[in-house]
Amino acid sequence: MLITSLPNHTVCLMCAIGWFAKPTEPNTANNNVSSKNLREKFTQLPHLAGTEQNLKYAEQIKKEWQEFGLDSVEMVPYDVLLSYPNKSQPNYISIVDHLGNEVFNTSLAEPIPDGYENISDIVPPYSAFSAKGQPEGDLVYVNYGRTEDFFQLQREMGINVTGKIVIVRYGKIFRGNKVKNAMLAGAQGIIMFSDPADYWAADVQPYPDGWNLPGGGAQRGNVLNLNGAGDPLTPGYPAKEYTYRFGLEDGVGLPKIPVHPIGFHDLCRAVSPPSLYICISVLGESLSQSVCLRKVRMNIHTNNQVTRIYNVIGRIRGAQEPDRYVILGGHRDAWVFGGIDPMSGAAVVHEIVRSAGKLLSKGWRPRRTIIFASWDAEEFGLLGSTEWAEDNAKLLQERAVAYINADSSIEGMYTLRVDCTPSLHTLVYNITKQIASPEDGEEEVSLYESWHKKDNWTDDRDAPRISKLGSGSDFEAYFIRLGIAAGRARYTKNKKTERYSSYPVYHSVYETFEIVEKFYDPSFRRLWAVAQVRGGLIFQLADSPLLPLDANEYADSLRKYTQSIKQLAQRHQDKMEIYKVSFDSLLSAVQNFTVAARDFHERLKTHNREDSLQVRIVNDQLMYLERAFIDPLGLPGRPFYRHVIFAPSSHNKYAGESFPGIYDALFDIENSADPEKSWEEVKRQISIAAFTVHAAAMTLTPPA
Amino acid sequence: MLITSLPNHTVCLMCAIGWFAKPTEPNTANNNVSSKNLREKFTQLPHLAGTEQNLKYAEQIKKEWQEFGLDSVEMVPYDVLLSYPNKSQPNYISIVDHLGNEVFNTSLAEPIPDGYENISDIVPPYSAFSAKGQPEGDLVYVNYGRTEDFFQLQREMGINVTGKIVIVRYGKIFRGNKVKNAMLAGAQGIIMFSDPADYWAADVQPYPDGWNLPGGGAQRGNVLNLNGAGDPLTPGYPAKEYTYRFGLEDGVGLPKIPVHPIGFHDLCRAVSPPSLYICISVLGESLSQSVCLRKVRMNIHTNNQVTRIYNVIGRIRGAQEPDRYVILGGHRDAWVFGGIDPMSGAAVVHEIVRSAGKLLSKGWRPRRTIIFASWDAEEFGLLGSTEWAEDNAKLLQERAVAYINADSSIEGMYTLRVDCTPSLHTLVYNITKQIASPEDGEEEVSLYESWHKKDNWTDDRDAPRISKLGSGSDFEAYFIRLGIAAGRARYTKNKKTERYSSYPVYHSVYETFEIVEKFYDPSFRRLWAVAQVRGGLIFQLADSPLLPLDANEYADSLRKYTQSIKQLAQRHQDKMEIYKVSFDSLLSAVQNFTVAARDFHERLKTHNREDSLQVRIVNDQLMYLERAFIDPLGLPGRPFYRHVIFAPSSHNKYAGESFPGIYDALFDIENSADPEKSWEEVKRQISIAAFTVHAAAMTLTPPA
Repeated sequence: MLITSLPNHTVCLMCAIGWFAKPTEPNTANNNVSSKNLREKFTQLPHLAGTEQNLKYAEQIKKEWQEFGLDSVEMVPYDVLLSYPNKSQPNYISIVDHLGNEVFNTSLAEPIPDGYENISDIVPPYSAFSAKGQPEGDLVYVNYGRTEDFFQLQREMGINVTGKIVIVRYGKIFRGNKVKNAMLAGAQGIIMFSDPADYWAADVQPYPDGWNLPGGGAQRGNVLNLNGAGDPLTPGYPAKEYTYRFGLEDGVGLPKIPVHPIGFHDLCRAVSPPSLYICISVLGESLSQSVCLRKVRMNIHTNNQVTRIYNVIGRIRGAQEPDRYVILGGHRDAWVFGGIDPMSGAAVVHEIVRSAGKLLSKGWRPRRTIIFASWDAEEFGLLGSTEWAEDNAKLLQERAVAYINADSSIEGMYTLRVDCTPSLHTLVYNITKQIASPEDGEEEVSLYESWHKKDNWTDDRDAPRISKLGSGSDFEAYFIRLGIAAGRARYTKNKKTERYSSYPVYHSVYETFEIVEKFYDPSFRRLWAVAQVRGGLIFQLADSPLLPLDANEYADSLRKYTQSIKQLAQRHQDKMEIYKVSFDSLLSAVQNFTVAARDFHERLKTHNREDSLQVRIVNDQLMYLERAFIDPLGLPGRPFYRHVIFAPSSHNKYAGESFPGIYDALFDIENSADPEKSWEEVKRQISIAAFTVHAAAMTLTPPA
Repeated sequence: MLITSLPNHTVCLMCAIGWFAKPTEPNTANNNVSSKNLREKFTQLPHLAGTEQNLKYAEQIKKEWQEFGLDSVEMVPYDVLLSYPNKSQPNYISIVDHLGNEVFNTSLAEPIPDGYENISDIVPPYSAFSAKGQPEGDLVYVNYGRTEDFFQLQREMGINVTGKIVIVRYGKIFRGNKVKNAMLAGAQGIIMFSDPADYWAADVQPYPDGWNLPGGGAQRGNVLNLNGAGDPLTPGYPAKEYTYRFGLEDGVGLPKIPVHPIGFHDLCRAVSPPSLYICISVLGESLSQSVCLRKVRMNIHTNNQVTRIYNVIGRIRGAQEPDRYVILGGHRDAWVFGGIDPMSGAAVVHEIVRSAGKLLSKGWRPRRTIIFASWDAEEFGLLGSTEWAEDNAKLLQERAVAYINADSSIEGMYTLRVDCTPSLHTLVYNITKQIASPEDGEEEVSLYESWHKKDNWTDDRDAPRISKLGSGSDFEAYFIRLGIAAGRARYTKNKKTERYSSYPVYHSVYETFEIVEKFYDPSFRRLWAVAQVRGGLIFQLADSPLLPLDANEYADSLRKYTQSIKQLAQRHQDKMEIYKVSFDSLLSAVQNFTVAARDFHERLKTHNREDSLQVRIVNDQLMYLERAFIDPLGLPGRPFYRHVIFAPSSHNKYAGESFPGIYDALFDIENSADPEKSWEEVKRQISIAAFTVHAAAMTLTPPA
């Protein structure tokens, strides 16, 4: 057990303030604090990135973190490209008759929930960074707008969307990928809507009577394809005052066509007439036919503008190794109130800072430096976290031990969900074994047991499932670009029985404090459990003399990924033979890695833990293991995605892809115009993966 | 004084074996050993990269390093693209008459020097990696083939060389740049010749009566434009068996036109008739006129082929910090005998390894790991060293403290020449103060004093001149790509009075042991002085508890470079105003760096040197300082040149350029077709430089 090396006094202090408790001791005191934070401080007013209110929240957080006793807290501003609707020219979509008259217009705003009627500055649903414009054209329905949906449309149905406006359902993939697909297909605009088939849970009422999305609700969100670049105008460098900015025409990832989201009431009203259920069935089948007699016009006036954002960065200086950083970061900016996203996560960070402050006041100080971050402008493309990563890249690549992400703590009510780098698996399991299950009727059960029962790792091992990191939250630059071990934890739905995409009110005005309090976590015990996981990771990574990272788990994962990518390639066994494609080099590298990891951990058993320099040396090997998977050349066409083992899928930013270089080279290869060249690229990517894994294995061997 | 921290016992041991001596104690014993090594072991037979003989020398070195007592010695092979003349179809150049008859042919080989007549396998002069072909055309003389020479030809003289064969003098710049310029100008072939104006020292006889280049001699050399890529077929990755290789058409830096070198006898014979001096004067004036009645035909049959090469890598495991690497590397492969290049350097490495072995046998072991490298295929584009750097990049970027290069120890007989990163300045000065001058009549004088007297740093400081690192030897990947502090030292000519390019017999068959023994260093004291500098750097970097790197010197250099690039830009003051170009951000970053460096060294004075972990922490700051200047995005169009402060000049690989991104953006900007875009690029490059310097400054501040 790696984490048994945690000094006793730390464990005791953490117990004393409720960090680890026997399953029979729920922490009601702390739950009340979390609840109060979430209610009173952070969800009463809209706090979109770049607004006065979000700066006020930043100042409040700074002040409180200082009061909690952090060694330093600073505001770190950047000037990044944001995007807002034009206040004098609202965005909407029309159906126009043959004379060009607008015979139907979509809503300009969502109905405001009770208790929030007097709140101003609620930004209406929009697609941030949409191009301006008023394109008009026939409407074509393309299901979820996925790569495979466009393939089906074009290849099987023979439909060309050049010059058309496409309409797609939200869900399954990141909305930016839908927009990119529409652009590549030649569409002149794209409309995204929330289909109840994707945003309604069964037997649940719409908010406020339940947690489903009301028909007037719509999902906001950015539609960039940044591929990790951060601020679109300053790719690779922090967006400081003096930083050179590209013109908008050269900005990274900005869509060239208008984009707009609508709710399903608007869609039902548009598709004449009757019940919701007819509407849905139309959607699934032949929407394009039902409106093809009339054209659609989009009216989009959204403005891009360079705007100041503020990260809040707090620190506890490490006692022995101040130059080793353990980072807990989550965003603060919200589309509206942020009751779930992100404040259910930000409240947890706040509690962890408070606890750390208490520990400090009792004389504790962690071995390593802990950095707490309240990121800004996550919703606009992970901007605050990425700019800070760019600003501090040289420090982070030499000094960062791990990054733990703290976005929304809940997206469901069923069990824990963890996505993390393989080397954190063991620590996550060990920590969750020390945390009580937050579920009613599980008073004697650990979070690990509860989670294990509900979501076992299928097939190959008897442990709770942990997934790969994708993207869509602030860990991206730390993990995918810089190669810092990273992880995230939240409470989630039962994905076997609950088929909806994300949680229904996601990015709508209905993400309030009340939806959490009434439905998602009335006792706030789930939030507390998530806080214990995130906080436990941070405290143990910061304080264990020997870093609790497990190279053997990385070896296991590499073996799995290699088998899986090999199987994918072997669907083209004939071509593999023709073009002499072999996975032998990668298999051999993974075998080297497996042996090196095993031997490394074997040596650790007899390692001298009294000599602080010698401990530092093995810790450096553990810390830099993740860094070894970084290729400065990046993935093809995605220079800021530099991790050879993991990247966001090229077809869905939310999903993590393993061996992404090989995967992308194999993608749709059966339809390649130049198969020889395509298979050469597969071979090149296998070679890069083999080299990288082999080189990573070398970092685990004795250093001289 | 930084190096006073060297433990006394180390200094004493090094004195005992003659590493540091009072000026009055010349080390004749060691000189004899060096001489013997050079004579007997390494210069008797040609040992071109990829040949059997060069492998034999590698095996011999491996065996001896093992006998000397290194902890490990291994052969590390790579399969890289090399280039050899076709043995059955010799390369030559003809003058053809109007019927196409070859009325004059150049020599197929150099006259062999006395004593070597029976040696086979002397490769004739050729341009490695020349394209094959037999182009025929008018000859145009383009002076040295520099960018400015082609500008003059095209812009002032109105001469278009499209479809022509150009002839250029060797010298001033790296030959690969000449070839690139010729290609860009549209030439279909390029001939390079050694002009006595550039390869004859005054009042010196041609070899064997003196050390000037005989008329029948010619300079071999590769004509690649790799820009740091290493093996042309595997850019970015080590050329292992499993590594994916590009086809030749996609290889990096391969010239697309035939290239061939000739000596000046061939040229004089071609340009009818009389004396050498007339010939030279023709060259300087109007060569193109004198031969324009006849066409020239090149007959080039050189083959590129993937060939196995071998580095020899020896190690001494560090006692306290085995994971910190100090590297001494120099190449072993030679165009022919390598009497100067590289064996005058390789013999020095051999002596240093022997000395280290002696120290080990007396119970010494350095604090850090020392790695000794005998690189292969340097002459073919720094291939052995670059492939090993690629292979070990992940280890090196986390662990390498410094790289000291050991190519030729002598290129002249006048004084010391050092090129190194600014942070090594102080160590170089301190070490040379402890070494005796090798010059006759300077028995009481230190190397530092002798050097200082002969080559003072002009204008701004009273110390011997140290220059920027350019490229053209094996430090390139370590310094420019990986950001490892690096330096080189050799004995050089008096550059104020000796105007010839390099040393006259450079890369000819006349680089023999005898030319060193008879002319360059009859007592071998100069070689020994160079050995003391190189070895002293290695021993002190490996053994000083506190790393002897000086950030204040980096600050000084950054200030100088900033002034200099600003002055360059200010030649276009009007345009700077129009396009709002300012250096303020860079000046401010350099000021930050200056303060951070000064404060860092101030804090060191009171730093606790008893706590090995705390010493490691400041050492890490010193070690990673050079790394902080690395930008993974690389310079525009040169992805493997990643150092923002230093790069080989885009116009001459041999020369180092400071702030190369800004320099290149400013280059010839007055003739830009799109001045606004060009000045935007200047601004972007200033912004990148400012960010990088500022970020480097941050690495020197207290770590938390």
